[in-house]
Amino acid sequence: MRHSRVILSERPTGPITDTTFQLLSEDRSPDPAAGEVTVRTLWLGFDPGQRGYLNDLPSYRPPVGIGEVMRSRAIGEVTHSAHPDYETGQLVMAELGWQDWTKGTPEELELELISSDIERPTMMLGVLGTTGLTAYFGMTEIGKVQDGDTVLVTAAAGATGSIAGQIARIHGAGRVIGTAGSEEKRAWVTEVAGFDECIEHYESGVFRRIRAAAPDGFNVIYDNVGGELLDATLGSLAIGARVVLCGAISTGYAPKRAEVGLRNYQFLTTRRSRAEGFLVFDYQDRYDEARRDLQRWINEGKIHWQEDVVEGLENAPQTLQRLFDGKNLGKQILQVAEPA
Amino acid sequence: MRHSRVILSERPTGPITDTTFQLLSEDRSPDPAAGEVTVRTLWLGFDPGQRGYLNDLPSYRPPVGIGEVMRSRAIGEVTHSAHPDYETGQLVMAELGWQDWTKGTPEELELELISSDIERPTMMLGVLGTTGLTAYFGMTEIGKVQDGDTVLVTAAAGATGSIAGQIARIHGAGRVIGTAGSEEKRAWVTEVAGFDECIEHYESGVFRRIRAAAPDGFNVIYDNVGGELLDATLGSLAIGARVVLCGAISTGYAPKRAEVGLRNYQFLTTRRSRAEGFLVFDYQDRYDEARRDLQRWINEGKIHWQEDVVEGLENAPQTLQRLFDGKNLGKQILQVAEPA
Repeated sequence: MRHSRVILSERPTGPITDTTFQLLSEDRSPDPAAGEVTVRTLWLGFDPGQRGYLNDLPSYRPPVGIGEVMRSRAIGEVTHSAHPDYETGQLVMAELGWQDWTKGTPEELELELISSDIERPTMMLGVLGTTGLTAYFGMTEIGKVQDGDTVLVTAAAGATGSIAGQIARIHGAGRVIGTAGSEEKRAWVTEVAGFDECIEHYESGVFRRIRAAAPDGFNVIYDNVGGELLDATLGSLAIGARVVLCGAISTGYAPKRAEVGLRNYQFLTTRRSRAEGFLVFDYQDRYDEARRDLQRWINEGKIHWQEDVVEGLENAPQTLQRLFDGKNLGKQILQVAEPA
Repeated sequence: MRHSRVILSERPTGPITDTTFQLLSEDRSPDPAAGEVTVRTLWLGFDPGQRGYLNDLPSYRPPVGIGEVMRSRAIGEVTHSAHPDYETGQLVMAELGWQDWTKGTPEELELELISSDIERPTMMLGVLGTTGLTAYFGMTEIGKVQDGDTVLVTAAAGATGSIAGQIARIHGAGRVIGTAGSEEKRAWVTEVAGFDECIEHYESGVFRRIRAAAPDGFNVIYDNVGGELLDATLGSLAIGARVVLCGAISTGYAPKRAEVGLRNYQFLTTRRSRAEGFLVFDYQDRYDEARRDLQRWINEGKIHWQEDVVEGLENAPQTLQRLFDGKNLGKQILQVAEPA
């Protein structure tokens, strides 16, 4: 059977280009050895942190090596099974990477079975996946959102930001303000995700617009953008504010140092506030609890989300770059194959 | 009786100059009205935060007004009393400001009696005053120093930094590293204050020297300097590090925004760390407990400190500027008069 995979061919210093990745294809037997299963990739999930895997810098995981299949969480379907616990047609979640199928033992592949109760399997890559879990633990454990808080979420139309803001509301936040780039995104943030206001975040004067949106400052700032926008938000800290450092999409996650950093950091001192980073995997033992909460809120109509689906494994590199060009509306997914 | 005071005459945009303050002198009756006491200023305490009082910017306290006596904590001596609870010769602590004497009710002056048990009254401006209390709460409540932690303190020869490092050691920190400017300061930090190492912090390559001092990173960074040095320290965070934003002496506390801010802030995310500011006055109800601890550690020879004493009220402006020129060795004090 034909096996296609997208490998890293050179480390980009800025945006992903035509020569960053390479699509390879060759014949390979799909038959699993004893104890193995073969899994066909259906959907790949994209998030900005994946760009970090391309930098040869110390991080919480080693970088993807040159010549290796690009790392990515995915939803797959078991097509062959030589393992007693798995059967053809079952849906699984695993870090399958940018390839159309793979085989191995369930332990090697770290397979997680997906419940057949789930409304849409791709939810496990988005609202019920690390995206939603990041928003959940970031807003509650790092942001420590409380009743009556005024909350700011940057990149509020994004997969994580949109859920973070809605979780703040569920926890009793008073005003929930977002920022986003396009008019289409801002309309979605206020009309569908139910934020009170959404600020244009590319044009100049954003420092002033943020101040105007909450003259008494924000108790929680959930930041996905970094750079100049994060710096501007620091001008609007309430006393004792928590700044959740979730992402820094504006930096492109490239291996260069910012020219101009956070110039407003002294407000952290004068406003007795904190800025804190976190890693969702540190909360792994609480994923079940978080997913139950998220699922209940979805059922109750309190959390809305959207997916942006591209098709075709060969488009994986450009699909990752979409995140940094601000093109995606909601969770970026790539459909590699139709489910059976 | 002659009454001398130093008033703010113009707001400086950078360092304090000859025209920032003005010394005025006039005759005034020292006799207290019923319920009042007259207090002669003996010692003034200086700290970098006082420079912030000269900026017309929102802060936790209003700025000192043009024409007003400069604000400062002080130790004084009661010279006249028309209040039943006070008698001549008693030592008090209060925010007397830059003047040689004043009068008012104990409530207006917010007088605190100083115990006659104290070894030296000026300790109430330094190691047992807001300086020592800041180090105490900053290192324990914000830095959350723990047994075995590797700790970095910037401006470790300073009044706060030197105490912060010694408190870390008392709480079981493993390696305690400081930074300081001059060779004289660095020798004091290692030989008297007992730090394991003290890094030169002005010369280039400080990022690399900090990394070399703790290849596995610091669990607590207690920063008094801000700016480029703080930025360099962010390159050496251990996972889950706490960065205590105590001061920013490098900025001169001037009302301008830094040209280049914290470019390394993304390490807070990748190292799951936090940077947090605080205000010692938020811990006011625990001052007694903290002072008991500090006094016990001093008695046990576990905390060493030094004072840098200048004389003469007319020298108050230059004495404040000494802090920003890195001239003081330890707590900066100005002696206004000899105790009786």
